[in-house]
Amino acid sequence: MSTTKTNPGNYFEDFHVGQIIRHATPRTLTVGDAALYMGLYGPRFAVQSSDAFARTIGYPSAPLDDLLVFHTVFGKTVPDISLNAIANLGYADCRFEKPVYPGATLSTVSEVIGLKENSNGKTGTVYVRSTGADEKGETVLSYTRWVMVRKKDEASPAPEAVVPALPEIVAPEALAAAVPAIDVSRFDTNLSGSPFRWGDYEVGEKIDHVDGMTVEEAEHQIATRLYQNTAKVHFNQHTEGQGRFGRRLIYGGVVISLARALSFNGLNNAFHLAAINAGRHVAPLFAGDTVYAWSEVLDKAELPGRSDIGALRTRLVAVKNRACADFPFKTAEGGYEEGVILDLDVWLAIPK
Amino acid sequence: MSTTKTNPGNYFEDFHVGQIIRHATPRTLTVGDAALYMGLYGPRFAVQSSDAFARTIGYPSAPLDDLLVFHTVFGKTVPDISLNAIANLGYADCRFEKPVYPGATLSTVSEVIGLKENSNGKTGTVYVRSTGADEKGETVLSYTRWVMVRKKDEASPAPEAVVPALPEIVAPEALAAAVPAIDVSRFDTNLSGSPFRWGDYEVGEKIDHVDGMTVEEAEHQIATRLYQNTAKVHFNQHTEGQGRFGRRLIYGGVVISLARALSFNGLNNAFHLAAINAGRHVAPLFAGDTVYAWSEVLDKAELPGRSDIGALRTRLVAVKNRACADFPFKTAEGGYEEGVILDLDVWLAIPK
Amino acid sequence: MSTTKTNPGNYFEDFHVGQIIRHATPRTLTVGDAALYMGLYGPRFAVQSSDAFARTIGYPSAPLDDLLVFHTVFGKTVPDISLNAIANLGYADCRFEKPVYPGATLSTVSEVIGLKENSNGKTGTVYVRSTGADEKGETVLSYTRWVMVRKKDEASPAPEAVVPALPEIVAPEALAAAVPAIDVSRFDTNLSGSPFRWGDYEVGEKIDHVDGMTVEEAEHQIATRLYQNTAKVHFNQHTEGQGRFGRRLIYGGVVISLARALSFNGLNNAFHLAAINAGRHVAPLFAGDTVYAWSEVLDKAELPGRSDIGALRTRLVAVKNRACADFPFKTAEGGYEEGVILDLDVWLAIPK
Repeated sequence: MSTTKTNPGNYFEDFHVGQIIRHATPRTLTVGDAALYMGLYGPRFAVQSSDAFARTIGYPSAPLDDLLVFHTVFGKTVPDISLNAIANLGYADCRFEKPVYPGATLSTVSEVIGLKENSNGKTGTVYVRSTGADEKGETVLSYTRWVMVRKKDEASPAPEAVVPALPEIVAPEALAAAVPAIDVSRFDTNLSGSPFRWGDYEVGEKIDHVDGMTVEEAEHQIATRLYQNTAKVHFNQHTEGQGRFGRRLIYGGVVISLARALSFNGLNNAFHLAAINAGRHVAPLFAGDTVYAWSEVLDKAELPGRSDIGALRTRLVAVKNRACADFPFKTAEGGYEEGVILDLDVWLAIPK
Repeated sequence: MSTTKTNPGNYFEDFHVGQIIRHATPRTLTVGDAALYMGLYGPRFAVQSSDAFARTIGYPSAPLDDLLVFHTVFGKTVPDISLNAIANLGYADCRFEKPVYPGATLSTVSEVIGLKENSNGKTGTVYVRSTGADEKGETVLSYTRWVMVRKKDEASPAPEAVVPALPEIVAPEALAAAVPAIDVSRFDTNLSGSPFRWGDYEVGEKIDHVDGMTVEEAEHQIATRLYQNTAKVHFNQHTEGQGRFGRRLIYGGVVISLARALSFNGLNNAFHLAAINAGRHVAPLFAGDTVYAWSEVLDKAELPGRSDIGALRTRLVAVKNRACADFPFKTAEGGYEEGVILDLDVWLAIPK
Repeated sequence: MSTTKTNPGNYFEDFHVGQIIRHATPRTLTVGDAALYMGLYGPRFAVQSSDAFARTIGYPSAPLDDLLVFHTVFGKTVPDISLNAIANLGYADCRFEKPVYPGATLSTVSEVIGLKENSNGKTGTVYVRSTGADEKGETVLSYTRWVMVRKKDEASPAPEAVVPALPEIVAPEALAAAVPAIDVSRFDTNLSGSPFRWGDYEVGEKIDHVDGMTVEEAEHQIATRLYQNTAKVHFNQHTEGQGRFGRRLIYGGVVISLARALSFNGLNNAFHLAAINAGRHVAPLFAGDTVYAWSEVLDKAELPGRSDIGALRTRLVAVKNRACADFPFKTAEGGYEEGVILDLDVWLAIPK
């Protein structure tokens, strides 16, 4: 006798607009997770790295890396949203709303905000707004994501198409919520690794982050399990060896974290990832590949009511197996250049 | 001048029935170990994953994974019991007797409870009862294990054969010790990932845990060192490359932890490994192999005095490089099927 | 528009004697780092492994591994001192001055104490004295290191040569600072794994530490990132694949930590690395290599005012892909034997 107590995941026709999904498993993040995050990516931003530095400027202690929070909140949605997904199409309107400290327990709730069946009748796009909250129920992070999901039964009728209006960028008013008032006079730029503050960056400026980091199978698997992200393609060589790429695909979040960690070299004081305006995984990354990154300053914004910090809007581009001195991005035809793997539009908070 | 201050391990004739061995090294387990355990295997049971969830149902905080406790207690016995072992023959009567929280310091004492020389006069079986205790001296775990150990001197006389009587299964009365009274009305099955409780499982039911996990050398080495398990075969490619398998052998405990983590998919609410009735490593696992698992419900038991939780006796089978939709186990001849690597008979605690 | 906000590192002519460099990034070490350190190397010294053991003998809790402190303090110096280094020439006068517990925040300041241009006019040796301090500003570690650094402009004039006088060994008076008074009557040698104390070791004694440990790319990368050490040669296969060795070079500190962890087998009670008198990386280590180690007792010293502990001066030799039963070291011609990778002269503290 065999039964189906395992999770088959949801198919396109299992979703409806307005549907609320409370995801398993709540997760307490600790200094243990922070250490492992450090070992996996090597970030060096002083605020997240040092309790003493964080306290000096006004935090109660070092907050967890914003992307550790993001990956944890995101990972919970995988079994319900993207187990039968063909592609992760994009992110938008991702806002970090509260600092998260070791000891916080995060859980995630998603609402289906859009559905659009594809003309082939076999797949459709599901839009979800996911919200991560801490153990007090307070939102720490929210973002919109859309994925292409398979239909289980191609004969099932198409739902009414609903495509949500998404902001192109997160408004500056929403950016400072996760940063307490800081005492910039005590922000020691020797310790933070660079003298450059908000005023030193110019719109249009491009920064080659120089360093490259080669990724191993063990590293991305440990990272992805740490987030309790269960997407099969990251872990199973037995099946992936016979699949599309012949090998395991690295979780896109690993690319984001590596690019962000590499971006320290040139954006040392931009200690807080305040928002992800838009994001796209342009090409896959595999073990043995080397990740490089570069940034372009797209915009600058004052933050309402904040004289301590300002915001830089940057494009963070990750590239594989190719240095970024020439800032590889798009071809004349408008496609991405060979090697580009990530195109992320973000807001960063940085002392003024 | 060279001396022998290193540990040569014990040989068969070094053991005598009734011998008590206090093992090095005491080990404080922390949230750091819990995070690394999460990164290495990816378990998702809500109780161990979330302080908030654990507190809601009656724990003071999230307990450590039962198998992290097991591997830590076990690892200490290796230098004294199995450094000269040829094979780890089996486990029995393994009871988890007290919840273990971050900050606890574990140490292990073993008693030799049986000895039986093999007819070849070169080896013998050593039976030990090992007990792990915390810093208060309270038992957290005890189990019996038997291993085949080499004789140093084949001419040394055989000891009187003593083979301990071992219970086939741990009695249900002994199962609930490590679980405080829990408030099942507050056990949120959205957060735990499944609606299925004790009453939903039937004897004879088989569950394919579906997912597969490929193991890398770095992963099993990091895990095995975390337990301070010093068995040489897991770490030394220089010697193992010339040995029986031509490569490093993965610690059997890694297989148990992976199978247990995979079993979340279908046994989501069976949050506590209450006992190991019997266990056998059927075949070796190597880096690059992919582990799958399936379970069969062998029995169900009420727990005396407990209306909150019940017990499921399951067979947890781990298989390599082969999916488990057909529940691979034994051949018509009674041997194990190709690919089966672990046959574990356990009691699980699950809310009623 | 591209700008240079990234760190180009310092070249030989950028240094001057007396120069003080305050390094980024301050780093809080936690139980998470301790767990990862354990998983990466597998040390088993009871004092660092167990809060209960440490408290019993007089510590407030288990201190962090001395080498985790060393690597963290060292890592901070890399972007400023050795980003343009050709070779790490040596260490001397390294003193562990204060025990470091989880929660401490470490930062590093270096002073340039010597400069000597090489006769080729292309490179020079830079001598720095680096001091690691905790969040109270108290020194936890100090050491001298000298590296060969490239000149940016070969035409720039040679500075006046200053070569600091370095002590051949750290004086015994300076050795006990990081060990509180301990109650040796409560130092349980069953739990510590060996009965051998200070009095049991003799000058001239050689100890083969027996075990070998194979290193994987993921392991050394995780370790080196944990220390926020950014030296490019450890991480970038894309460039190193075309470089001198055709592959990534393992950070020498990984070798030191592995050799130290292996040395537990034979030096079980020598729980504290009190000083590094001198050190030299004799040959590179690569992923896939297996590290062995042996020690020779070079000297013994009483510690002024301390009846609880004494010091052993040992040579700790690490060797790759070759067992150490014959204590490989130097050839008749005075060079190092094939396989030797580390020659470290240290003081160890051990109960009397």
